[in-house]
Amino acid sequence: MKIHERLAELATLGATAEGIDRALCTAPEYAARERLVRWAGSGGFSVDQDRAGNVFVRLNGREALPPVQCGSHLDTVKNGGAYDGAYGVIAGLEALEMIASTGVMPRRPIEVVAWAGEEGSRFPLGCIGSAVYAGLTPLAQARAVIGDDGMTFGDALASPTGLLRDVPVRDGFPPPVAYVELHIEQGPVMERAGIRLGIVTAIAGQCRFHVEITGQAGHAGTMPMAGRADALCAASELTLAVDRAAHDVGNAVATVGRLIVEPNQTNIVPGHVTLRIDVRSVDDARVATIEKRIRDAAATIVQGRNVRITIEPIETRPATAMNERLRKVVRDVCTSLDPKAANIASGAGHDAMCVAHVAPVAMIFVPSIAGQSHVGAERTAPGDLELGVLALMGSLLAFDHELTTDSKEK
Amino acid sequence: MKIHERLAELATLGATAEGIDRALCTAPEYAARERLVRWAGSGGFSVDQDRAGNVFVRLNGREALPPVQCGSHLDTVKNGGAYDGAYGVIAGLEALEMIASTGVMPRRPIEVVAWAGEEGSRFPLGCIGSAVYAGLTPLAQARAVIGDDGMTFGDALASPTGLLRDVPVRDGFPPPVAYVELHIEQGPVMERAGIRLGIVTAIAGQCRFHVEITGQAGHAGTMPMAGRADALCAASELTLAVDRAAHDVGNAVATVGRLIVEPNQTNIVPGHVTLRIDVRSVDDARVATIEKRIRDAAATIVQGRNVRITIEPIETRPATAMNERLRKVVRDVCTSLDPKAANIASGAGHDAMCVAHVAPVAMIFVPSIAGQSHVGAERTAPGDLELGVLALMGSLLAFDHELTTDSKEK
Repeated sequence: MKIHERLAELATLGATAEGIDRALCTAPEYAARERLVRWAGSGGFSVDQDRAGNVFVRLNGREALPPVQCGSHLDTVKNGGAYDGAYGVIAGLEALEMIASTGVMPRRPIEVVAWAGEEGSRFPLGCIGSAVYAGLTPLAQARAVIGDDGMTFGDALASPTGLLRDVPVRDGFPPPVAYVELHIEQGPVMERAGIRLGIVTAIAGQCRFHVEITGQAGHAGTMPMAGRADALCAASELTLAVDRAAHDVGNAVATVGRLIVEPNQTNIVPGHVTLRIDVRSVDDARVATIEKRIRDAAATIVQGRNVRITIEPIETRPATAMNERLRKVVRDVCTSLDPKAANIASGAGHDAMCVAHVAPVAMIFVPSIAGQSHVGAERTAPGDLELGVLALMGSLLAFDHELTTDSKEK
Repeated sequence: MKIHERLAELATLGATAEGIDRALCTAPEYAARERLVRWAGSGGFSVDQDRAGNVFVRLNGREALPPVQCGSHLDTVKNGGAYDGAYGVIAGLEALEMIASTGVMPRRPIEVVAWAGEEGSRFPLGCIGSAVYAGLTPLAQARAVIGDDGMTFGDALASPTGLLRDVPVRDGFPPPVAYVELHIEQGPVMERAGIRLGIVTAIAGQCRFHVEITGQAGHAGTMPMAGRADALCAASELTLAVDRAAHDVGNAVATVGRLIVEPNQTNIVPGHVTLRIDVRSVDDARVATIEKRIRDAAATIVQGRNVRITIEPIETRPATAMNERLRKVVRDVCTSLDPKAANIASGAGHDAMCVAHVAPVAMIFVPSIAGQSHVGAERTAPGDLELGVLALMGSLLAFDHELTTDSKEK
C-alpha cells in the first residue's frame, strides 16, 4: 500500500505552521485533485469531472451498468488535518488498485469520487459538490454562492484553480447502486472502546441556533448588583442549560462553541452577548426535546435576569440513516477484519448525507487518536488506516457481488 | 453660571459619532486644557502646570499658605461622556468665579486642578497625573509608561499636544490642607433614591483577576458529552459564582466584564477561555471574602469539569476612606442645599484616591440619569449640575474658614 506516502504527500499541499489550509478551488486544493488524477492515471483508471468540480476515478466493470461507488473529499478546514476526507479518497484509489491487481474484473464499474468542498471552508455551503451531484442544490444556485474572499463558486470554478485543465468534463453521471464512505471517526469513542472498524448507523441530525441576549451595560464599579441586567450572567445560565439538556436527554450532544461579549471590557457589566448553539443526535426527536428544554430555560432566564433573549434556528438537518442492507454487508466485511467491529453513530456530517438522496449509502469509520480532528494533530494509527482500506475494498467487492446476484435487479 | 455652555463647548472637543474621545495628550485633550486656561485667564486667575501636565488654576488668598483645593480631570474614556471629569473641573472654575465675584478674599489660595489622564485611556496607568503629584509614582517612571500608540508619556508630554505652550511649568506645588472632588455618580443609586447631592463615604477598594481556563477542544458533533472538558461551561459556572458571591456577601459588586473563547467556532467544543473578574467594595474584608469564594468555586469547577483554572491578581487597590472632618463640613453644606443629601459609596476610582496620600480629601456626587456613564448618553440634570457647583463653592469656603480658625494650625 502506498496510502501513508500518498497522505503524507497530500499533507504538504496547503501546509501551514498549525495544520493544512486546503479550501476549495485554491491552489493547494487544485494541486491535491491534480495529484489524485496523476496517481489514478498511473493505475490505468479513467478519470473525468462534472461541472461542480467533483472528480470521478473509475475501474471499468464487465457491463456498462450504474457503478458501485465510494468517495470523500480533498478540501480541509482552516488549519485542518491530513486524514479528514483525504483518507477516504486515497483509500478508495488504493482499493481500486488492489482490485485491479487481482485481475478480477467486477461486473459493475467501481468509482472513487473526490467530492468538491465538503467542509464549506471557503464557500459557506458544506458538501457543495455532492449536493449538486444529488440534485439537492441546483448547479446555478451553487455557482452563485459567494466565498469568503468575495468570489462566487462559479467564478472560482472558471479560474485557473477551478475545474481541472486536462480532465474531461461530463454531464449526467448516473447515481450509483451503492455508495460507501470510509472516514476517520473524528471523535474518541472507538479509541476508548478498542474498536478498529466502526459500522456507521446514521449521521446525526443537527440544529444550529443564533442567540442574542440583550441586557443593560453599566459601570462595573457603580452599578449595584440589585437591578443589574448582566447579559453574560444570562448567557452563562443558558450555556449550562444547553449542556445539561444534552446530558439529561442522552444520545445527543449540545454545545455553545461560539460566544461574543459586548463591550467586553473588564470594568463594564456586559450589555450584550451573542452565542451559537449546536445540537445533534441520530434521533431527531431528541434534538427537538433539547431545543424545547433550551427555550424553556431561556424563558426562565429572561425573568430572572431582566434580559431579552432571541433564539433563531440558522441550520436544520434531519438525521440520515444508513441503508440497512448495505450496513449488513459492511458489518460482515468489517467483523471478519476486526472481531470488535461495532456500530457507531456519526456526529459529524459527510458527503454520504447528500448521496443518500439518490442512492443507498453506508459508512465505515476508523479511530481518531485522542479523538482529535480539524486540527494539525489529527492522527489515525497506520495499522488502522490500512485495515480501513481492506474494509473498503471488501465492501466494494461485496456490493458488486451482492447486487450482481440480486434477483431483484434485472 | 456658564457651566452648561462650557461643558457643551468642551463636549465638541474629541466628539465622535458615539461619544467623546479625549485621551491624554491628544489634540482634543490639549484643546480642552487650553480652553480651561483661556477661561481662567478671563477670570483673572493665575495658571501654572507641573511636569506631569497637571494644570493649576488659582484664586489667591490673603496669605501665602498651602491652598484649599478641588479638582478632577479633562480626559475621557473612548466614546465617553461630557460630564465624567470635566464637570468637576469646570464646576471648580465656576466656584472660583463666584467667590471672586463676592469680593470676599479667602485667607488661603483656592485651587482648581485639572489632573492629567485620570482614565488611563491612552497610557495604561489610571490617575497618572495625580499619582505623580502625590508621589505615588515617580515622574521618571510615569514618563516611561508606553501608550497604546507606542509613544511614552514622556514623549507625549514633549509633543505639540503635551505640556501647554504658554503656561509656566513649576515644581514643588505644596499639598493642599483640604481637597474636595465634585463628580457625577456614574451609577443609578442617587437617582433611584431621589438624592441630589451625595456625600461620599469612601472610594471602593478593587481587585482585578485574570483567569485562564484550559479544557480540551473537540468536534462539537463527535465528542460525546461524557468526558468533555468544555472550557466555556467551566467559565459559565465561574461567572455565576462571581455574581452569586457579590450578592451573598453584600455591600460589594463583582463582575465578569471580559470573556474570550477559543477557538470560538460554532462546531468546536471550547478548549480555552480567558476572562477578567472585577471585585469592589468600600470594605476591603468583603473583597477578600469574595475572592475566597471565587477561588473555592474554581476548585470545585476544576474537579467537576476536568479543566485547569489559574486566577492571577492583576490590580489590587484598598478602599480609600474620606476624611471624617471634611465629610462633616461637606455634609453640612450639602444638607443645607438638599434636605435629602445622603452618604454614598463611590464604586469608581477618582483622583481623590491619590490626593488622599498627601492631604485630607472629600468628594461630592451629583446623580447620573439612568446611571449611565462612560458612554455618549451620559447625562446629569442641569439643576443638579448647578446644585453641585453651589455645594462645591460652599465646601471650599467652609474649608478655608474652618481651617483658618482652627486652633491646631499655627
